[in-house]
Amino acid sequence: MKLTILGCHSATPRTNTNPTSQVLEIKNHMFLIDCGEGTQVELRRNKIKFSRIKHVFVSHLHGDHYYGLIGLVSTFTLLTRETPLHIYGPKGLKEVITLQLKLSDSWTNYPLVFHELTSKESELIYEDDKVEVHTIPLDHRIYTNGFLFKEKENERKLDINAVLNANISVAYYRKLKQGADVENEDGVLIKNETVTTSPIPSKSYAFCSDTVYNETIIPLIKKATALYHEATFLEKNKDLCKRTKHCTAKQAAIIAKKANVANLILGHFSTRYNGYDDFESEAKQEFDNVFLAKDGKVFEF
Amino acid sequence: MKLTILGCHSATPRTNTNPTSQVLEIKNHMFLIDCGEGTQVELRRNKIKFSRIKHVFVSHLHGDHYYGLIGLVSTFTLLTRETPLHIYGPKGLKEVITLQLKLSDSWTNYPLVFHELTSKESELIYEDDKVEVHTIPLDHRIYTNGFLFKEKENERKLDINAVLNANISVAYYRKLKQGADVENEDGVLIKNETVTTSPIPSKSYAFCSDTVYNETIIPLIKKATALYHEATFLEKNKDLCKRTKHCTAKQAAIIAKKANVANLILGHFSTRYNGYDDFESEAKQEFDNVFLAKDGKVFEF
Repeated sequence: MKLTILGCHSATPRTNTNPTSQVLEIKNHMFLIDCGEGTQVELRRNKIKFSRIKHVFVSHLHGDHYYGLIGLVSTFTLLTRETPLHIYGPKGLKEVITLQLKLSDSWTNYPLVFHELTSKESELIYEDDKVEVHTIPLDHRIYTNGFLFKEKENERKLDINAVLNANISVAYYRKLKQGADVENEDGVLIKNETVTTSPIPSKSYAFCSDTVYNETIIPLIKKATALYHEATFLEKNKDLCKRTKHCTAKQAAIIAKKANVANLILGHFSTRYNGYDDFESEAKQEFDNVFLAKDGKVFEF
Repeated sequence: MKLTILGCHSATPRTNTNPTSQVLEIKNHMFLIDCGEGTQVELRRNKIKFSRIKHVFVSHLHGDHYYGLIGLVSTFTLLTRETPLHIYGPKGLKEVITLQLKLSDSWTNYPLVFHELTSKESELIYEDDKVEVHTIPLDHRIYTNGFLFKEKENERKLDINAVLNANISVAYYRKLKQGADVENEDGVLIKNETVTTSPIPSKSYAFCSDTVYNETIIPLIKKATALYHEATFLEKNKDLCKRTKHCTAKQAAIIAKKANVANLILGHFSTRYNGYDDFESEAKQEFDNVFLAKDGKVFEF
């Protein structure tokens, strides 16, 4: 599981800071998460092949999370893309993208498939044989979702000596990996756990931005391999959180601790600060495995 | 008159090329012309104060000419701007900008004034005591205008010796500068041209992008101090011009020659080329004063 941060700053793009966008590589997918202005340039800078992006997840319709999407959609057209692009995001996204295509008297030469979100409950919005994506309803100034990307449970591992000793036909190995008990060549029922071992734990990534401190997300992100949680402010500016519906680094860390995640990545930093070391130290008072997002940084889990 | 090129490339932004945008400083105005994705960052990079921009002129609704506008409008809000922003561009621009503001459940805290264009004839769209802005109808795939920025005629200069010899009252100097004949202290009518000299020639800048080769613009841009004309292709790719409704460098130079402008700036280069020297040499076969636009380059006239 590999996460590339294209942008991790709030509000407006500057010469040295990009608004929110990231790419999660998981089970051969390249999921684009949020798409602030300039995302297509950051994708190029980070040498991520446009053609590998087939799904875009948009948290909410504040500009720093999606103003780059129409440019990316248009560029895909100019590059004569044919592969469908699936866009998951709040209701309204389809209208604004299609209006801009209409005004330019053009359409994509590839299928553009919108999956508009309106539910305030967590939903399964994407699924294949290897991965699931669920929404994480967040509490921000407008309708907002985080996203939980989960590898499906891996297959159990055969204890090959035990399997051979138990005299099980090769034809049943598949069933064993899926966790079933099987009959051996002598007609005896063999309990699965006696001939297999636990699967490699499946990984998960929770993206939670933007949101006010909100404990209701904890059951949804429980034990995630990595949690990206917004930390727009430091505790010294906590008074700004209530009005803007953002979090401090400390609050993000408390969520990480309560959800018992393995790793916490902080991002969506306000550009009012000159550096972000204080975000790390503030969060580490609550939680150990804290990392700071940085434009262009790659995390591998 | 000072022109700063923020971006001069066609189609999609890349790590080292920006789509169309430029700032014209004329008679204390800072006119923003077109606003491709990333314009707000290029404004910062070129140290142009956001607060000085009060008028934005959008040629047409292809993304490489306006996808950066909504980001700029939003950033002005975050920076608590109060000064009105006037936006001149094709019908539809208001709908797309206001839809995005509505979806983010926000509005600007400054007046946003749209001047939507629909005419196929040249129009005077802005005027004050020093400057006029006229549209230049262009022929592109969708409704497109260039813009002519003109200083108003300067005042005639007094030939102070001649004025004193003619025994004219100081009270009439203003009228003389404005070109009127006046009576002197002895009641004799003094012809204006005997006591004044021609004014400093007023300057003008014509922005023409995007367009196919189109001689109907020539009377509108006649004798401009500077003409920015699109030159998307070289003659060797001339076959692409007809379908895409763009020009070659040579065609731009022919327009410059026929319009008898003082200087020609070429831009809107296709990113298919590795360098742009051939654009200059191709154009110079038709016209001498050719300059190449370049992101970040400043022209003073």
